[in-house]
Amino acid sequence: MKFQPPKGTRDFLGEEMVLREFILDTVKNIFQKYGFEPLDTPAFENFELLAGKSGEDVVKQIFQFKDKAGRELGLRFDLTVPLARVVASNPQLPKPYKRYAIGPAWRYEEPQSGRMRQFYQADVDICGSSSVEADAECIACAVECFKSLGFKKFAVRINNRKILDGIMELIGVEKEKNMEIFRVIDKMDKIGEEGVRKELEGKALAKNQIKKLFDLISRKGDFLKTLGEGKKILKGIGIAEEGIKELEEIFELAKYYGISKFIALDFSLARGLDYYTGPIFELVEETEKLIGTLAAGGRYDNLIEQFGGAKTPATGISLGIERMLQLMKERKISSLEKLKIFVANTDTEVKDEALRIAQNLRSNNVTCQMDLMGRNLAKQLDYADKCGFDYVVIVGKEEVKKKKFKLKDMKKRTEVTISLKQIIDFLASKACRKR
Amino acid sequence: MKFQPPKGTRDFLGEEMVLREFILDTVKNIFQKYGFEPLDTPAFENFELLAGKSGEDVVKQIFQFKDKAGRELGLRFDLTVPLARVVASNPQLPKPYKRYAIGPAWRYEEPQSGRMRQFYQADVDICGSSSVEADAECIACAVECFKSLGFKKFAVRINNRKILDGIMELIGVEKEKNMEIFRVIDKMDKIGEEGVRKELEGKALAKNQIKKLFDLISRKGDFLKTLGEGKKILKGIGIAEEGIKELEEIFELAKYYGISKFIALDFSLARGLDYYTGPIFELVEETEKLIGTLAAGGRYDNLIEQFGGAKTPATGISLGIERMLQLMKERKISSLEKLKIFVANTDTEVKDEALRIAQNLRSNNVTCQMDLMGRNLAKQLDYADKCGFDYVVIVGKEEVKKKKFKLKDMKKRTEVTISLKQIIDFLASKACRKR
Repeated sequence: MKFQPPKGTRDFLGEEMVLREFILDTVKNIFQKYGFEPLDTPAFENFELLAGKSGEDVVKQIFQFKDKAGRELGLRFDLTVPLARVVASNPQLPKPYKRYAIGPAWRYEEPQSGRMRQFYQADVDICGSSSVEADAECIACAVECFKSLGFKKFAVRINNRKILDGIMELIGVEKEKNMEIFRVIDKMDKIGEEGVRKELEGKALAKNQIKKLFDLISRKGDFLKTLGEGKKILKGIGIAEEGIKELEEIFELAKYYGISKFIALDFSLARGLDYYTGPIFELVEETEKLIGTLAAGGRYDNLIEQFGGAKTPATGISLGIERMLQLMKERKISSLEKLKIFVANTDTEVKDEALRIAQNLRSNNVTCQMDLMGRNLAKQLDYADKCGFDYVVIVGKEEVKKKKFKLKDMKKRTEVTISLKQIIDFLASKACRKR
Repeated sequence: MKFQPPKGTRDFLGEEMVLREFILDTVKNIFQKYGFEPLDTPAFENFELLAGKSGEDVVKQIFQFKDKAGRELGLRFDLTVPLARVVASNPQLPKPYKRYAIGPAWRYEEPQSGRMRQFYQADVDICGSSSVEADAECIACAVECFKSLGFKKFAVRINNRKILDGIMELIGVEKEKNMEIFRVIDKMDKIGEEGVRKELEGKALAKNQIKKLFDLISRKGDFLKTLGEGKKILKGIGIAEEGIKELEEIFELAKYYGISKFIALDFSLARGLDYYTGPIFELVEETEKLIGTLAAGGRYDNLIEQFGGAKTPATGISLGIERMLQLMKERKISSLEKLKIFVANTDTEVKDEALRIAQNLRSNNVTCQMDLMGRNLAKQLDYADKCGFDYVVIVGKEEVKKKKFKLKDMKKRTEVTISLKQIIDFLASKACRKR
């Protein structure tokens, strides 16, 4: 084989791609139901925009290049930065501006991490509302997506950058170093507790600071119990108390959405991107250690202003499509797929008639194909079998004369001879099948 | 404004984006009805692959870059080259392999041409069939897309690279120079007849060769009439006669598809890409000179083999989404859009109840939003008005007690007081509206 997709990328085809399309259609429909409207931005942005407010770890991963006029560009690494640019440069947009975006993003990841360098995200964001109602709505919308797709054992871990700021205050870290520490904490799943401890020592944290820190960030699980513990320890630290109050309100709203049972508090949740300012959240599968985060997001109240816009609070969540796909494949969670029909001919003289029948089926919204290879009937049936067609309509001279055609059920291996209208009625009535 | 999208690119949002989504959904559905299955490939490919067989004009336009390991990459400039790579490297795919692909491609175009540097294409291709039935099916599928979207005055210009080869033979051009000449002819719409003549002189064609050439390529229009003329002039030139026979067969098939009235023959149609080998086609708007080609494609029987695959004849057509969108906007061709409902509250005490009602509507597949800004009722109604909401459900203390709610028709400025069930039944029954 001479050519393969570039390293770190892959193609999607066949049943896997059909399943991916099913995921995207499902989440798009749910996003629309919640009143989010679509937005599409270019794949690349000015490098300066991407590098500006995101944090060094992700900037290192940007696919960077120059256009032929020497402009510094980069492939986007998420859908949030482009959104913030759009909102900053379109002050006329009524607020709240609720948008969804579905598309690829790119990061030059190390191959060993198992991540792809091109990956699809499906995001909802609400710009203009500082209320935690907006955070709760994004979380509820994401949870509905996962439930609709057949996910059952997931949890929404939540935390708040304000609580993390409070923890830093408590253990005596200077404010400027907060983000550096958060990025280390964010690596917990990758490098483990020991790895985090070691890196924190490298950041010149004292042993007792690290001990105090771990006493807090090791607390996770049941929302109310964990919150109660955190409240005690962080009592009197204003910023932390504000963060705790916000999470309490989100939990209250989650009850009304009927999703509070999914909410877990996790003081070690930090998220690696610099731009978060308030509640942060991750949707994880509880039973599958390896699959990692399925969706993640949080509040970023300063980003739009930093890109030259008016001060605009914002929050959102991003669904990782490849991981959802991987998990659905492993669990054999199925998609609805259109019935596949093949219109076969017994000899070339009736091909025109077969074409007319195929067009008639299509105009009745039935998905079908016909022979394009000049194959005889036996080979056409072989092909239909190999490709998983559900039914074959057989068109021959005799059939055309009598206006009755054989409809062959390829799974049951039975056939009936009926009129075209009967065929259409039958097929249109069951246009979809479960895979 | 500090940040704008990179030069040559733009954002899509609001109603324009809703219309674009409608176009993409419509063509996707039709592609599926014809039995095409989805394929997704990475945005970038190895530069060598892109540069290999496409022609110097397009290679100059590739956004080229290196990844951090020094690999030479480029953003894809169409969806055909990636398809050919996939087919070459997946010999197990049953033939014919019929795929659709919808996504962006990138070309570094000169700003004055009015083209964007990122543009969406929607392609169908059939790999493995050398029959013109495959070409005809791709054309028919594209025509159905345009008809479904409300396009009326379009024509499918067709020609055949074999006929062009025959013309070159007739006027005495060496075979190796053919493609060079075709690329000049392809510029007819851009630089006009005089421009083409001048460039051909630059390619060292003699005056009488150019005269002979123009005698043929100036013939266009009615299929049968133009074909008859071409037949006479090209009589005895084997390759041209083969090409003419193929077009005759496509025209016959077009009759069965009911689309022959759209087919026009145009001997000046050349297409700029190197990889075409047989029939080539373009779908153009007849009345709008400036809008240019809406869809284009052709047969490329050698490309897959050139990328290291087995010899695999192939053909396909690519729809240019931005131009379709532009034309639909100008003509005010409308899309179906979901009804927009706003669930308003009269004070914060009933917000929980408003949220429950919104969730209830959503679970009945009704698109709705609610206040996230802590606005009073008047301001919520202002917002709903400004954003073009169709109905507002008003939730107040009294309403909650009586279990009857106001449903306000924002266009007619009328309101009724009815139960939630009545509201749901009413809204679910008319979930879509024409824009």
